[in-house]
Order: sequence, then structure tokens, then C-alpha cells
Amino acid sequence: MKFSEILEKLNLASSHSLKASSATDREIAGPAPVDEATSGTISYIEGAKFASHITSTNASALILPLDESLQAKCDDRDIAWIAAADPRLLFAQTIALFYQPFRPESEIHPSATIHPTSQIGKNVYIGAHAVIQPGVKIGSNVCIHPNVVIYPDVEIGEGTVLHANCVIHERTRIGANCVIHSGAAIGSEGFGFVPTATGWVKMEQSGCTVLEEGVEVGCNSTIDRPAVGETRIGQNTKIDNLVHVGHGCQIGNNCAFAAQVGMAGGVKIGNNVILAGQAGIANQAKIGDGAIATAKAGIHSDVPAGAIVTGVPAIPHKLFLKAAAVYSRLPEMYQSLRQIQRKLDR
Amino acid sequence: MKFSEILEKLNLASSHSLKASSATDREIAGPAPVDEATSGTISYIEGAKFASHITSTNASALILPLDESLQAKCDDRDIAWIAAADPRLLFAQTIALFYQPFRPESEIHPSATIHPTSQIGKNVYIGAHAVIQPGVKIGSNVCIHPNVVIYPDVEIGEGTVLHANCVIHERTRIGANCVIHSGAAIGSEGFGFVPTATGWVKMEQSGCTVLEEGVEVGCNSTIDRPAVGETRIGQNTKIDNLVHVGHGCQIGNNCAFAAQVGMAGGVKIGNNVILAGQAGIANQAKIGDGAIATAKAGIHSDVPAGAIVTGVPAIPHKLFLKAAAVYSRLPEMYQSLRQIQRKLDR
Amino acid sequence: MKFSEILEKLNLASSHSLKASSATDREIAGPAPVDEATSGTISYIEGAKFASHITSTNASALILPLDESLQAKCDDRDIAWIAAADPRLLFAQTIALFYQPFRPESEIHPSATIHPTSQIGKNVYIGAHAVIQPGVKIGSNVCIHPNVVIYPDVEIGEGTVLHANCVIHERTRIGANCVIHSGAAIGSEGFGFVPTATGWVKMEQSGCTVLEEGVEVGCNSTIDRPAVGETRIGQNTKIDNLVHVGHGCQIGNNCAFAAQVGMAGGVKIGNNVILAGQAGIANQAKIGDGAIATAKAGIHSDVPAGAIVTGVPAIPHKLFLKAAAVYSRLPEMYQSLRQIQRKLDR
Repeated sequence: MKFSEILEKLNLASSHSLKASSATDREIAGPAPVDEATSGTISYIEGAKFASHITSTNASALILPLDESLQAKCDDRDIAWIAAADPRLLFAQTIALFYQPFRPESEIHPSATIHPTSQIGKNVYIGAHAVIQPGVKIGSNVCIHPNVVIYPDVEIGEGTVLHANCVIHERTRIGANCVIHSGAAIGSEGFGFVPTATGWVKMEQSGCTVLEEGVEVGCNSTIDRPAVGETRIGQNTKIDNLVHVGHGCQIGNNCAFAAQVGMAGGVKIGNNVILAGQAGIANQAKIGDGAIATAKAGIHSDVPAGAIVTGVPAIPHKLFLKAAAVYSRLPEMYQSLRQIQRKLDR
Repeated sequence: MKFSEILEKLNLASSHSLKASSATDREIAGPAPVDEATSGTISYIEGAKFASHITSTNASALILPLDESLQAKCDDRDIAWIAAADPRLLFAQTIALFYQPFRPESEIHPSATIHPTSQIGKNVYIGAHAVIQPGVKIGSNVCIHPNVVIYPDVEIGEGTVLHANCVIHERTRIGANCVIHSGAAIGSEGFGFVPTATGWVKMEQSGCTVLEEGVEVGCNSTIDRPAVGETRIGQNTKIDNLVHVGHGCQIGNNCAFAAQVGMAGGVKIGNNVILAGQAGIANQAKIGDGAIATAKAGIHSDVPAGAIVTGVPAIPHKLFLKAAAVYSRLPEMYQSLRQIQRKLDR
Repeated sequence: MKFSEILEKLNLASSHSLKASSATDREIAGPAPVDEATSGTISYIEGAKFASHITSTNASALILPLDESLQAKCDDRDIAWIAAADPRLLFAQTIALFYQPFRPESEIHPSATIHPTSQIGKNVYIGAHAVIQPGVKIGSNVCIHPNVVIYPDVEIGEGTVLHANCVIHERTRIGANCVIHSGAAIGSEGFGFVPTATGWVKMEQSGCTVLEEGVEVGCNSTIDRPAVGETRIGQNTKIDNLVHVGHGCQIGNNCAFAAQVGMAGGVKIGNNVILAGQAGIANQAKIGDGAIATAKAGIHSDVPAGAIVTGVPAIPHKLFLKAAAVYSRLPEMYQSLRQIQRKLDR
């Protein structure tokens, strides 16, 4: 694709007006990482951390932030460029110009096992060996990859994609345009056992799990259903791989949970909350809108809206950074303190 | 179901005598979470944390602890109630009055692949596309959901349920009335590699994994087998989702491990041990009966029976709480210490 | 097998000359754990931690380190022994004398769904209900267990084993002699979403994942592909269960990652790096050759070659040990400091 064509298409896709270099007639084969780009590819520079790559990259074109000094450096090295307020979004749009994700054509594979009481919409793909139990409703344009198992009375909204070997448990309702990645288990039984003098007694998990429109759930993640009521994931919330969402959690819209995050039962999370990798949240804790937990944070009590928290137990991030900086000086502090005490005791 | 009928059935199920309100003829449609309950449902109040819901819930009936003030509040709001020493257990029994978990009828699906040398008990369900390799023994009343794979020479005890897409590896022995949830891998190869000058040499994992009666293993959890001997999970131990149990671990009876807990190889755990979410235990560590590790604890050495431990490395919980309270004051402590030193140096 | 025959075979397999006891004619049925060994089995003693077992084990033969006092103790108890510089390696070789891992014979099961455009090598096993999409290339002697799903345009090298229910995503290239354990997801979409004023915008993941020769990936682990370029795992790197490797990570050769380790996107790891259980590495961090992260370490910035790091944020291991030893004294330090201040204020 000619660079000029990329520029034209991005101008149409972008909400901002773009700046671009004048060198527009070169041929671009596709996008590439900036440090491995070869001649004929387009890449991007996001923040200061990557700016140094401009002097060494072999890319023939770059997407830049609105920084004239970077643009000048590109001109010096004969790198065509497009500059925008959000170069990362522009790069995502550029990738989409070149790449079509794998999407099988509409087909119901003869080896799939589909119960006659299920309802299947139009233009649906159901892959080999998929299993659809009684009472399931599948919307139009749904894509169910091979070996997926859907338990009874599940609803799958239009345009949703279920990747291979994921399992959707009884009564789960998945909204439109969701993506469930390989091996994820949705709506499985919550971990509900009552301690008694004679051992654990199972509390049946009669509730269900609801994923609203536009939710993504990563590979091998697990989202349990509760004893009563719902576990609910709000619109457009994105969940990475190996995440656990406990029974009865209520998650808002537009959240992002990185890999290996874990939530115990009954956690309530607002909108636009970000949980970084391996963070954990204890039973019944509430996290306000827009809060951020950094990697490995352990949250035991409520977090107010907009807060950034770190550590175990989690404290405000800035306070944590200061305390952590002192942590490695603990041995010398301990020695100093003893010396002072000895001095004062004399 | 009439409230009076619920009360009667719970009285039969309960080991304690129950107290109840006199309003017994109302119709109850089913159980519900206390904060989302609608008229005609029954819910429960466990501890002080939930007591405030009595003044706002729309439930028509509540299960209460033995607290007369709560009972009086229910009477004021015309909420029928049942009170017991363990309201949570009573609520579990109430759910079971209304809810029958999904259990497919006895059938061996024609698409299942079952080796002729395997032995299958009576009244068994084997779902679509399940695979049963040579020498497998399946007890009566076992339920094997679709796409489960069972490697050779596995034994599955009576009444056990294997959920969709779980994998049971060679020589594993699973006792009666166990539940293996979707995607779990049981008896897989332990992570056994010997470091040598020319790289890692694989130590073949010739041992096996044994789950005693009444064990549950959560979705996508993994329990490895050892090089020699057994990995063993004791009776009625309950394991949540995404838990890893390393090769050769010996786990006692009636333990509960929350989601994302991890155990390295050769860990020995007593009876009635509770490991909260994301806790980890290092190689060969021993945990005594009744010990508790709180969320995210990192245990590197032996923990005595009955201890409650927290932190990384794990220390007694009360000590941790005190230390953690001071942690965020580290920067001010550091400043104070420097000021004192300067003062004393003058 | 006679003890003399074991000794002879180990002598052939070993790069070092072995020492052995004179009692060589006893029959050995197989290997066993030292603390559970019965008469007629062979076990091993690795370090000082296990040496005490010599006085109690029922094993008829032991593999020992080069320590004459241990050998003498064996002689006293009539335990035949073999001594070597690396007893663990020798024990691995001993297990391999007795144990043949399960390996199905060459067969393409009639229920497998194999696209006609795929290319299948010689002597391949493809189990029941496996699904192989268009354009896949399978090398000779590959073993694909039941219910594996392989997306389009994947390459699987000679001798590689894919265990049950794992999923290999589009364009992934897996080298020769790799092992992918049950439920693992390889080459799945990276977690790439661009924050915008109207919510998360998906960045298509057009890159691929490459596993070089001899890589192992544990059960239910996930290795994502990036938006552009490659995620790459170097030769003979061994990855345990429930590990997450984010999009675009570059991992060197001969590394070992224990269970539940997580890496965010773009992490660069050298050769011979060891990450212990539940360690986590933040976006774009670089870890030098031979570095070690201990269990639960949280790495936020670059780690030099050969370093051993611990803690969150990770600091040098020795420093951490000293600081952690003081941590539990924080409350008393805080009190001391306040007392000193009061004293000085007077």
C-alpha cells in the first residue's frame, strides 16, 4: 500500500487532523516493531522511551506524537511520518489496514453436537466438536471455535466470538460483540463451602454470570457464578489471561484487568478501573471509579474513586514509593537506632 | 414454597433447633442476595457487616443469627425470619430446597471415544467427544462432561463429576464424590529438570496423583504428579480456580485453598489448613494442622499448627499487621532518625 | 533389574566415573521417594537436608553425593549405593531405566478434523477430536493428543508433543522436540487495547509467537502474540504451569520459569534466567543472563546479568533478607524512635 493511501485512510479514521511528511509515494508492505523494522515497513514512536529508535530504525515510515523535533529527525533520515495526538491509536488503525484477523466462514461443522432445543441465529460458525447443550440461544454472526462446550440455558449475543476449548456454564448470559479467549471458563461454580464441625458443606451455586456487551476475557481466565444473584462484568471491560473473578463480583464498564489478577467473592468495582498484573482484591472490597491498582497490589479494604494504590496491604502509590525507597535502608536504620539508644543510655 | 414448608424442611436438616417468626404462610419463590432481593424471596444476614441490610432489603424472609435485636427489626418490617447458630449453613440448605444443579442423565454419547480395555460402571454419563484411553476404570454414577480427556490407567471413583475440557493424566486415582471443574489438569508431569553444564535434563515423572474422596478442584487448576511416589490430596479438601499444586505435595484432609494459590514441589500440608488467595508455598515447606495463610502470603519455611501467617516472607499475622501499620511511616521515621543523628552529632 | 545392571547402565550414561558399593547382586524393582521407599527400591539423597533419611529409609539402594561418610552409613545399613558428583542427574537417569512415558502409537484418529491444505509428516499421532485448520504444517514424529485445536498456518517441528486440550493459535511456529502441556494456549491474542475518550480500542494482534527447539510449556500456561513482530521463547527454555508470557516478550535460551510467573508485554529476558514461583515482571523490563528472581518477586526495572533479586519492588536478594529481618521489628523501632524524640525534646 502506498504511504499516501495509508495517510488518506487514517485521515478518514481519525478524529483529529493529522500532520504528515511530504514524502508520500513510497510503498509500505506492513507494520513492524520499531526496533526490528525493515525497509518498506511502517512503525511508531509513542513516548520519550522509544524516541531514540528514530536514529536507528530501518522503518520507511513512522507514526509520531505531535513533536516537531521528532518530525525533523525523521526528515533528516528520509523516514516518512504521520503525527497525531495519539500515535498509539493511529498505529492500531494502521495495523487494521493491513491485517484481517482469522474468522472462519459461516458453517455448522457436522461433528458439532447441538441439542435440538437450542436456537441458532444467522450467519453463525460452529466449529468441529463444539457441544451446545439444551436451551442455549446463539445470536447471529456468532463464531464458536472448535471444542467449545456450552452448558444448558446459556445466551450468546450477536457477533460474539468464543475461542477454542473455552467452557460456558449453565445460565450464563454473554452480550453482543464479546470475545472469550481459549480455555476460559465462564459461569462456573463459585467456591462456596460452609465450614461445619463435620467438614465443608457445599453451598449450591444457583446464580448466574452476566457479561455485558463488548467484554473480552483472556485465555484460561475463570469467572464464577454466585450462590444467589449474579456475577456481572460491565460493558467493554477487558480482562487478560489467567484472571480469576470470584462469585458475585460486580464489575463496572470499561475496566481493564491485566494477567493473573484475582478477585475474591462479592467484590464491587466501579467504571474505568485498572488492575495491573497479579493484583488481588479481598472479599467484599469496593473499588471506586477510575481507581488504579499497580502490579501485585493486595487490596483488603475499600479504595476511593481515582486513587492509585500499591503494596500489600495496598496504600496510596506515592506513599508506597517513598516507603519502599526506605525499605532497603531498614538494616542501617535499625543499627542507627541502636547506636543512638546506647549513646543516650550512657 | 410456603415459608412454613421451608421452616419444616430446615428443621429436619438442621442439627440445632431453629427459632422462627410467627409469620409462616407467605409464599417464597426462591433465595436471593440480601441487597438485591425482591418481594417474595428469602435471603440471609450473616455477620454485623450485613446487619444494616435488614432496614432496606425487600426480601420477604431472612435467615438470621441468634440475635434477638435483629429478629425484632425483622418483625417491625414484617419480614419472616428463621434464626440459627449458623445462618450461612441454613442458607445453603435453603438454596438446596429450590435449586437442582445441572446433571445430565445417564448416557454414553456416541461421539465419545472409549477404549475397549476401559471399564465403565453403571449409570454413567459420558458426554460428547470425551476421550477415555486404555485401562481406565470409571465407577458407577460418574458424570464425565463433554471434551474431557482421560489418559491411560486412570481410576475415577463412584459419583465423581468431571466438568468439560478437564484432563486427567495417566495413572491418576480420583476417589468417590470428587468434582473436577472445567479445564483443570490433574496428574500432569511435574516440573522436573536437572540443571547440567549442557542445559536442563528432564527427570521423567513416573509417579502419580491421588485425590481422595470428596475433593474438589477448581477450573483451570493444575495438580502435577512427581518423579517418584505420589502427589496426594486428602479427603474433602476443596481447591479453587487457577491453583497450582506441585509434584509430590502431600495435602491433608478438609483443607481449603482459594484461587491462584501456588505450591512448589514436595510441600507437606496438614488437615484443616486454609490458604487464602494468591498465597504461595516454597519447596518442601511443612504447614501444620489448622494453620491459615492470608492472601498473598509467601511461605518459605515451616509453619506450626494453628498459626496464622501473613506477608513475604510470611510472619505471624498479628505481628505483620503491626509492622504493616508502621510501613507507611517509614519515610517519616527515616527523616526523624536523620534529624536525631544530626542533633546528637552536634 | 539387578543393581549391577543399573550401575553398568548409569556408568555408560554418566559423564563422570561413578563410585559404588560392593553389594551389587540385589534385585531392584524401581525408584521411590526416600521417605516412602520399600525394600527392593532405589532412591537418592541429594543434599544435607535429606541425609538424615539414610538412617531410616527402607530403600535397598541409594544414589549419593560424593561424601564418604554417607557411603559408610549405607554400608552399615546394608544399603547398596552409587555415588556421583550430581546424584540428582543420576537419579533422573535411573528413573529413565525403569519408566517409559506414555506415548501413543502412530495413528490419525478418524474423528480428528484435519483440513486438506495441512501437511502432515511421517509417524505422526493425531488423537481423537483434534482439529487442524488450513495451512498447518506438522513435522514427523509429532504427537498431538486428543481435543487439541490448531489454528491456521501453524508450524509444529519434528518430535514435538502437544498434550490434550491445548490450543495453538494462528501463525505460531513451534520448533522440534517441544512439549506443550494440557490446556496451554500458545500464540493467542496479546492484551492490546488503546485507551481513548470513548473507551478501549482494540489493537489487532497481527504478530506471531515462536517457540524454538526444546521448549516446554506447562499446563494452562498462556503465551500471547504481539500486535507486530514476534513473541519468542529461546531454545530449551522450560516453563511451568499457569505462567503468562505477554505479547512481544523475547525470552532467551535455557531459562526456567516456575508456576504462576507472569510477564507483561515486551519483556526481554537473557539466557539461563530463573524466575521462581509467582514472580512478575513489568512492561518492557530487561533481565540479564543468569539472573534469578526469587518467589513472588515484582520486577519493575532492568535486572543486571547474574543478579539475584527479591521483593516488591525487587531489590538484591541479600539486601532484601536483611531488610525483611528488620521488618517485623518495625513496631518496636517506631516506639523506640518516639521515646528517643521525647527524651531529646525534654
